[in-house]
Amino acid sequence: MEGKKKTGARFEMVKKRHAATLKKAEDEKKIDKAMVSLCDFISGTKNFFTSSGCSGRIILLGLKSRSKLDSRFHRKWHEKVEPEKVLEALEEETEGEIWLKMEPFIIHIGTNSLENAKKLLSLKDKSGIKRGGIITAKPGKFIVELIGTEEISVLVKRGKKILASDEFIREIVEEANRKIGFNYERVEKFEEIVRKELR
Amino acid sequence: MEGKKKTGARFEMVKKRHAATLKKAEDEKKIDKAMVSLCDFISGTKNFFTSSGCSGRIILLGLKSRSKLDSRFHRKWHEKVEPEKVLEALEEETEGEIWLKMEPFIIHIGTNSLENAKKLLSLKDKSGIKRGGIITAKPGKFIVELIGTEEISVLVKRGKKILASDEFIREIVEEANRKIGFNYERVEKFEEIVRKELR
Repeated sequence: MEGKKKTGARFEMVKKRHAATLKKAEDEKKIDKAMVSLCDFISGTKNFFTSSGCSGRIILLGLKSRSKLDSRFHRKWHEKVEPEKVLEALEEETEGEIWLKMEPFIIHIGTNSLENAKKLLSLKDKSGIKRGGIITAKPGKFIVELIGTEEISVLVKRGKKILASDEFIREIVEEANRKIGFNYERVEKFEEIVRKELR
Repeated sequence: MEGKKKTGARFEMVKKRHAATLKKAEDEKKIDKAMVSLCDFISGTKNFFTSSGCSGRIILLGLKSRSKLDSRFHRKWHEKVEPEKVLEALEEETEGEIWLKMEPFIIHIGTNSLENAKKLLSLKDKSGIKRGGIITAKPGKFIVELIGTEEISVLVKRGKKILASDEFIREIVEEANRKIGFNYERVEKFEEIVRKELR
């Protein structure tokens, strides 16, 4: 069994490291702006930290092969997008498959004890987030992952061939815009509850 | 603090109740067959239980309104499906929106201690399952959720109007078939590891 002092010291170290990673991501604009305010608040609490998060996005994902390792963003939007912009991006030359996706938020929050991790699970429930749980449980280091459920994922192009009609792609982009709206509302609700209840 | 004896007794009770629910689901064929063997094995261990699970499916989901509460299955397949069957099902009269979805497996496993819950997280990692975590953490009752990442989700019909061409729907169903194949392989891999490592 490790001593409380040792796990406490380790937590402080982990928390500091994550605060630095967050600062760097913010400086380099690698974190989307809807996440900055939530992450900054969490970083300022005594017992919780976060180094990253994505508030949700609409993307055109290129897959050269079946492996996710071989994927890259053809386009990425952290907000609603004009259907015409998606159509234009699809007209560009691409290789392999292109998937049109609306991906929900994903947030990782760290803390120092099982009790505090359970506190995060209760805030998750309170804010109506259905998906997520404790993904790491070590002495002095617990990580809770929270994921939204709004999503769209569909193949739209293979090689040079766009598989769906412009009209259909417009419909799907409008759906993605509606869903990303609900998704952002959920993140806002979560931030509201976190600001009230995490110290 | 509750005594070990009390939480132990509570665990036995919960485990028994879940075994009965599982038995009933199997008798009524409410659990898909790819899950039966895994759930039976887990149910037979000393420290773990499960009452449910879905091995993944291809569905046509009807949404009368924006609320998930208002959704119902127009069709559901726990295996690969002929594209023509999907097209036929879409020709039937339906209300509201119809979404074509390939949903990944979702498995809930319960256990009696944080240590055993962590054991489940390690088996999740070993079998290459990316998503999931401890969703309940109470004295004597820990639940781990595991979810696959292969998925497709796209709106295909609104009111009487099928939004996509037959050709496109065939493409997407073939993708769904490929993805559900990978998804089932992951479940098999997980079962293989569980059978080796859970007692």
